[in-house]
Amino acid sequence: MNDEPEVAVLRLGHRPGRDDRMTTHVGLTARALGADRVVFGPEASSPADTVRDITDRFGGPFDVEVTDSPKAVIRDWDGLVVHLTMYGLPVQDVEGDLREALDDRTPVLFVVGAEKVPFDVYERADYNVAVTSQPHSEVASLAVTLDRLFDGRELDREWEDADRTVVPKDTGKKVEDTSGE
Amino acid sequence: MNDEPEVAVLRLGHRPGRDDRMTTHVGLTARALGADRVVFGPEASSPADTVRDITDRFGGPFDVEVTDSPKAVIRDWDGLVVHLTMYGLPVQDVEGDLREALDDRTPVLFVVGAEKVPFDVYERADYNVAVTSQPHSEVASLAVTLDRLFDGRELDREWEDADRTVVPKDTGKKVEDTSGE
Repeated sequence: MNDEPEVAVLRLGHRPGRDDRMTTHVGLTARALGADRVVFGPEASSPADTVRDITDRFGGPFDVEVTDSPKAVIRDWDGLVVHLTMYGLPVQDVEGDLREALDDRTPVLFVVGAEKVPFDVYERADYNVAVTSQPHSEVASLAVTLDRLFDGRELDREWEDADRTVVPKDTGKKVEDTSGE
Repeated sequence: MNDEPEVAVLRLGHRPGRDDRMTTHVGLTARALGADRVVFGPEASSPADTVRDITDRFGGPFDVEVTDSPKAVIRDWDGLVVHLTMYGLPVQDVEGDLREALDDRTPVLFVVGAEKVPFDVYERADYNVAVTSQPHSEVASLAVTLDRLFDGRELDREWEDADRTVVPKDTGKKVEDTSGE
């Protein structure tokens, strides 16, 4: 986001059809809440198209990638790998370390699983992080963690090349055509 | 949560099958992040069963309701109605008001739509609130808003009558059988 080091989100274990909406929401949440890039596995071309389409219309910069080897993305990541899991350490105990890493210009990769995540991901991760130790939603965990990592700065992010821009209103909807700007 | 005024989440516009997982994630996120109750529409019995099952196993108190008239829940709510929508006012501008209401012991109802939300919901809501003006996920919006409303206190919530309890670990998984306690 802006001139900060790269923050990327990798979605592991996507099952076509069944996971399409959840995977799409992971991608859109990554984009809206300050990440620079989302990486999907080989069978997630449909969610990738949706997130690209939103980026085309509502602005960027934001990159969407589909990879044949998600594991290689983790293995080769030059920076911090943070795996979000209900079995990990409380986010409130770890968020200071994550912010410090970002301040030191260390790129951060968040790994978000669908169903069961292979054990070597737990071992490779620099941090296994839990947003509560309760079962809920990988989308919720990602959202809370990004909001805490960026300390709310992501909410003021500005978007480039947006065809349309929503203008906040207390009641109703206001959308401006910004395609000519 | 604990001795605070009631915080409930109402899921509007659920479509059976198509929305089951998203609606389930709304319910589980509400539970994990400090709400006291989730209310689903008439066709969401399957997500309701899943959230009840998780509450049975991982603890409460947390109530799951299915109603024939979600609109009546909004109309009759004795407290603040907060509709989460990308068209609303920025959460960072409104969160102080919400925290103040909770401090004044005002119950808060969050309304979370699936697809298009009827206009009268915008009008009835005391606040229409946006977690960014970007399209992303109602689960992410709910998570960030609850985390900000409770100022992180929800992460330390204690659970009663849990059959199993996850113990945070830096690597791997540890689950304790707490059914005998």
